[in-house]
Amino acid sequence: MNGADALCETLLANDVNVCFANPGTSEMHFVAALDRQPAMRCILGLFEGVVSGAADGYGRMTGKPAATLMHTGPGLANGLANLHNARRAGAPIVNIVGDHASFHLQFDPPLASDIESLARPVSRWVGRASGSADIAPMAEKAVLAAHATSSVATLILPADAAWGGVEPAASHAVVIPPRPQVPPERIRAIATALRLHCGRFGVVVAGDAAVNPGLEIAAGIALALGGEVFSEVIPGRVARGRGTHPVRRIPYFIDQATASLAGFDLLVLIGAPEPVAFFAYPGKPSRLVQPRTEVLTLATRDEDILQALAALAEHIEAPKRSALRSDPIALELPTGALTDDAISIVLAQLMPENAILCDEGITSSRRLFELAARGSPHDYLMTAGGAIGNGIPMALGAAIACPDRKIINLQADGSGMYTLQGLWTMARESADVLIVIFANRRYAILEIEMANLGVNEIGRNAGAMMSLGNPDLDWVMLARGMGVEAARTDTCERFADLVGSSLRRRGPFLIECVI
Amino acid sequence: MNGADALCETLLANDVNVCFANPGTSEMHFVAALDRQPAMRCILGLFEGVVSGAADGYGRMTGKPAATLMHTGPGLANGLANLHNARRAGAPIVNIVGDHASFHLQFDPPLASDIESLARPVSRWVGRASGSADIAPMAEKAVLAAHATSSVATLILPADAAWGGVEPAASHAVVIPPRPQVPPERIRAIATALRLHCGRFGVVVAGDAAVNPGLEIAAGIALALGGEVFSEVIPGRVARGRGTHPVRRIPYFIDQATASLAGFDLLVLIGAPEPVAFFAYPGKPSRLVQPRTEVLTLATRDEDILQALAALAEHIEAPKRSALRSDPIALELPTGALTDDAISIVLAQLMPENAILCDEGITSSRRLFELAARGSPHDYLMTAGGAIGNGIPMALGAAIACPDRKIINLQADGSGMYTLQGLWTMARESADVLIVIFANRRYAILEIEMANLGVNEIGRNAGAMMSLGNPDLDWVMLARGMGVEAARTDTCERFADLVGSSLRRRGPFLIECVI
Repeated sequence: MNGADALCETLLANDVNVCFANPGTSEMHFVAALDRQPAMRCILGLFEGVVSGAADGYGRMTGKPAATLMHTGPGLANGLANLHNARRAGAPIVNIVGDHASFHLQFDPPLASDIESLARPVSRWVGRASGSADIAPMAEKAVLAAHATSSVATLILPADAAWGGVEPAASHAVVIPPRPQVPPERIRAIATALRLHCGRFGVVVAGDAAVNPGLEIAAGIALALGGEVFSEVIPGRVARGRGTHPVRRIPYFIDQATASLAGFDLLVLIGAPEPVAFFAYPGKPSRLVQPRTEVLTLATRDEDILQALAALAEHIEAPKRSALRSDPIALELPTGALTDDAISIVLAQLMPENAILCDEGITSSRRLFELAARGSPHDYLMTAGGAIGNGIPMALGAAIACPDRKIINLQADGSGMYTLQGLWTMARESADVLIVIFANRRYAILEIEMANLGVNEIGRNAGAMMSLGNPDLDWVMLARGMGVEAARTDTCERFADLVGSSLRRRGPFLIECVI
Repeated sequence: MNGADALCETLLANDVNVCFANPGTSEMHFVAALDRQPAMRCILGLFEGVVSGAADGYGRMTGKPAATLMHTGPGLANGLANLHNARRAGAPIVNIVGDHASFHLQFDPPLASDIESLARPVSRWVGRASGSADIAPMAEKAVLAAHATSSVATLILPADAAWGGVEPAASHAVVIPPRPQVPPERIRAIATALRLHCGRFGVVVAGDAAVNPGLEIAAGIALALGGEVFSEVIPGRVARGRGTHPVRRIPYFIDQATASLAGFDLLVLIGAPEPVAFFAYPGKPSRLVQPRTEVLTLATRDEDILQALAALAEHIEAPKRSALRSDPIALELPTGALTDDAISIVLAQLMPENAILCDEGITSSRRLFELAARGSPHDYLMTAGGAIGNGIPMALGAAIACPDRKIINLQADGSGMYTLQGLWTMARESADVLIVIFANRRYAILEIEMANLGVNEIGRNAGAMMSLGNPDLDWVMLARGMGVEAARTDTCERFADLVGSSLRRRGPFLIECVI
């Protein structure tokens, strides 16, 4: 066997059995090795942003890493934006980047570049196999790092390490150490703060605290003491729907965000960093809480969130389940001309049990998060790192991770164009995804931000950079061009019909909503 | 005025008057400033790979930088692959990357990342404006670096530097110093080597030596002494066609490349690095010349190539113009089922005077370089860094650079899918581009490389990663979905008709060739 075989076997021994890939010549030995492993499922993306975004969605939904396979520095570069999102969402990924044979790099061939420099900004761990015998131990380290930090571990695979022979040896599963426990003193200190404070308070949940059972405990603690439960501004994943505590999103726009958190004397972070402004503005604060708000961290993302929650709940004698539940949604289905809010209302009403909503609708889906809390139970995933082009690939990855669940991808047209190639992989893999395109034909968020600058007259240059018109995109043709069935509508009635029929079938279907 | 205005004025004072852009919120003040500058032409790309690839094509054809505008680390990441190609091709670019306000970075907002680490692998110069007053001097340094090194200069623009006020001051043009002259001793040494050596010899031309007047002089030197003129394996730009010396490409495949250079006792590099294998293979050499071949550099890319060529020509009394000319092509137009070679024959015959061929046909266009040498005079551009997804954006940039010339983009389907969004910008800007898609529905180069490993049976996993079928892409729909007229054919006659009619009109037109 060769180094590439050892890599495959190490991955499989560690339950890494999906590989999202776009290989090149330097990865051919690895491709040949993957071909000898029927237990591995290789899924081609026609661009590396699809590969990394799918691994992100897969990691968020399974909690375990998929492998990715990318070709040298430029291939990795193409995948970086969605690795950035994965890093912010806390999705584990074993990110394999093929490189030239080690002896060849000194000649600086055209595709050579500094892969480590490209990888570090998005990776919690970066390693390079120094030879064939080093591959299995490095792959184990990568698996360990991906699990332990729930983030991106990048393993650089020189071609000669892949093709060199190794002694056959049994691969074994890495022992994933448990997350570090939160020390009792910290839990006691937070319990004390919760008992003593005398104003409004909130908790911000992410990671294990944003899905059950963690969310139930966190909500129980908050409600027992009259507090509110927030998600991050752009949460990576949060459980929602009837029967689940309706977490509030901290608003994106800075004035609304500071207003939501105004008057709080205590904010407890559970798996989340302190909420800060997505962007800075002249004369506005970076921090969203007021200076006098005490911000305490119960557990970081790398710690054992569930243990900390259970211990804190015991301390303050909180109920095991939160009392606050969402009322079922009972809005009338809207009629007439389709609007972005009407789309959200229809989807919140019609979405099936256990759906996974992958929301990159940006400005257009702004009401869906709140409305969907009153719909069927579901998971809600967003572009956690703010790097657009996450939605379509993330939906693909979620579909591979959870083949028995319906995926609904709310997709702004501008960000959808970043990684539209993912539609093709959905078609090839029969991914069960309903893609809803909000075709407003503009970068609406930029228009809002421009207006916030006080600029009301848009000239030729700014107009060229904020409009997606001239010519209009035709998403039905784009989808069909990649083998995905699609339809267009601009009425609520037809939209509801299309959603209904697409939910009754399996496989990808795209609805272009002209709004 | 603010820092963003100062940046615009510095760019315009230095003849940087095209900005390929995809901005985000942190760049809104710069967008507003661009909107106040009618002399600047802002061109939107729906993905940053289009932005950087267009700037690459523009820089190769004009020899001066366009500006790019990208949004924070992830936006830059999306543009890196084509910046890598620009770096290898020697295309000047002033690459502007917006970042968070400097005071905001300490809070690690979701879109924050290490932009410098991402930028360095593709940039010869990286700078960050430390404040509003620093913008104009930093922009001047970026312009200078882009010109002086003919490469990518990355200027990081914090939002608060853009929005902060500056004293109005007249912007002025930077003095671009002449390229360093090659010392006379080196020219004498090479002249001596050329006179004394007694076997086969060649020159490898790139940069100013691959276009006229440099190519004429280089070819004159080679022919005076019985040598051959080569381009790089994947040249960034080379002048070709009747009346121009027919430079030979060093073959891509390693055995053919070493055979082409076998028996050479001298190879003189003029603006090009020593040719090396594109990839390494077990048991094969990295260097393409034999160990006994003397390799001498007349001038590096950063030196004054034209002066060195003129001085060397004088030393060896070479004729001013090369004697060898291509015979006009006079092949019969092929008939029947369309093949990749038939496409090359038709295009070589029909292409108009002064066309710009942007060739990312990979395996499918392998004969075109040679055939086109006997067609109308033209420039031939390839994916110099080997990072696929260069063709469509490069063709767009060439069209913006040279609005009076016809651009012909030879495009493999697999690499075309990387940056297909560029078609939309072609439609919006009425870019005069004929896009020819080689729809072989596979990564043919990978099939060849796999066969070279001795693997002849392709299983499920390798098959999934090398085939673009299941489902087939429909490029006519993809093009029309982005507003580009298109047609499909699988016969030579229809292809020739479509080429003829598309050459008689202006604006983008795509032909999907099913081969």
